Amino acid sequence: MAEQKATNVYWHAGEVNREDRAQLLGQRGATIWFTGLSGSGKSTVAVALEQALLKAGKLAYRLDGDNVRMGLNKNLGFSAEDRAENIRRIGEASKLFADAGILCLNSFISPYIADRDVVRQLHDDGNLAFIEVFVDVSLDEAEKRDPKGLYKKARAGEIKNFTGIDDPYEAPLQADIHLRTEHMTLDDEVAAIMAALRERGLLSA
Amino acid sequence: MAEQKATNVYWHAGEVNREDRAQLLGQRGATIWFTGLSGSGKSTVAVALEQALLKAGKLAYRLDGDNVRMGLNKNLGFSAEDRAENIRRIGEASKLFADAGILCLNSFISPYIADRDVVRQLHDDGNLAFIEVFVDVSLDEAEKRDPKGLYKKARAGEIKNFTGIDDPYEAPLQADIHLRTEHMTLDDEVAAIMAALRERGLLSA
Repeated sequence: MAEQKATNVYWHAGEVNREDRAQLLGQRGATIWFTGLSGSGKSTVAVALEQALLKAGKLAYRLDGDNVRMGLNKNLGFSAEDRAENIRRIGEASKLFADAGILCLNSFISPYIADRDVVRQLHDDGNLAFIEVFVDVSLDEAEKRDPKGLYKKARAGEIKNFTGIDDPYEAPLQADIHLRTEHMTLDDEVAAIMAALRERGLLSA
Repeated sequence: MAEQKATNVYWHAGEVNREDRAQLLGQRGATIWFTGLSGSGKSTVAVALEQALLKAGKLAYRLDGDNVRMGLNKNLGFSAEDRAENIRRIGEASKLFADAGILCLNSFISPYIADRDVVRQLHDDGNLAFIEVFVDVSLDEAEKRDPKGLYKKARAGEIKNFTGIDDPYEAPLQADIHLRTEHMTLDDEVAAIMAALRERGLLSA
């Protein structure tokens, strides 16, 4: 398989660049940023999208609390300053992934417009696509789902500064993709994102 | 090209995993870590290796001072603590790259054995290959080359804590690959690394 791919590669003298990697992979790197309340289904749709991309022969990678809070950001807590630094580092890491040619799927509540805009600006500065996906769910519905029992704990005061309860969630004013999860199936959500990626020319070189 | 690749993809229900990405790419992710004095030729060999990998249809990505110090680690200085955190974050980021299936080529002086061992351990813990490449040059020769004029400034006292002059360089005791740059051509160096990657099964799925 390696040899077949190599025959299609656009090669030049000098440093390997973003275009070389796009030609190699048949895709263009980008960051797809899922924001929404806890329980909105950010990870669920990111996982389903990653499967759809794999089936289409596209390389994606997911960043989420599991692989970031235990590693790159393990020395960060939950103060306002640390939360901002958490999102900043994730933004910088995903920018590197996008530059490498990968579709980087990021699922973080990321409740503040300002923090998300920092990440968008980083990508704009690097001429890299940043696609903000608003995983929209009402607080009522999120609290009804409560898959990890976190809302219950937040209501009981056992968790402080919980987004949606005693900390604000700032919904995107102009998300690139708006998933109204209470009125869409998971398949519809994935199809909407795939269409947006295709439209932007990210699924081909 | 995407469609051709997709036909070879090993697909299963559930989350996309490291094996899926290896099958898609025809390679296994790993971190190749170049350590050595300023002027040893770390970046030169990393750039040449990246070209060789591209020609073989393999996806690589280089992390170096240029894309890390200006981004992910831009809030770090050069205190002992910040230097260690610099290497730690680079290690965690390259671990994510390796998990994503990419051959991550890191060129950093990274003068301390302890810091490099932290990164090796991170990869070991994640069952990911970490290949330490000692880009070996004598201080005399590095100082003679002095491509950026930094040794001259360090000798004049204009730069403090410069590795090799007034800060130590701890050579690897057991590097995975030892490049004696004063006795090897660049082609030989690249060939040695390519052979090591092939031997470890990293250039196929």
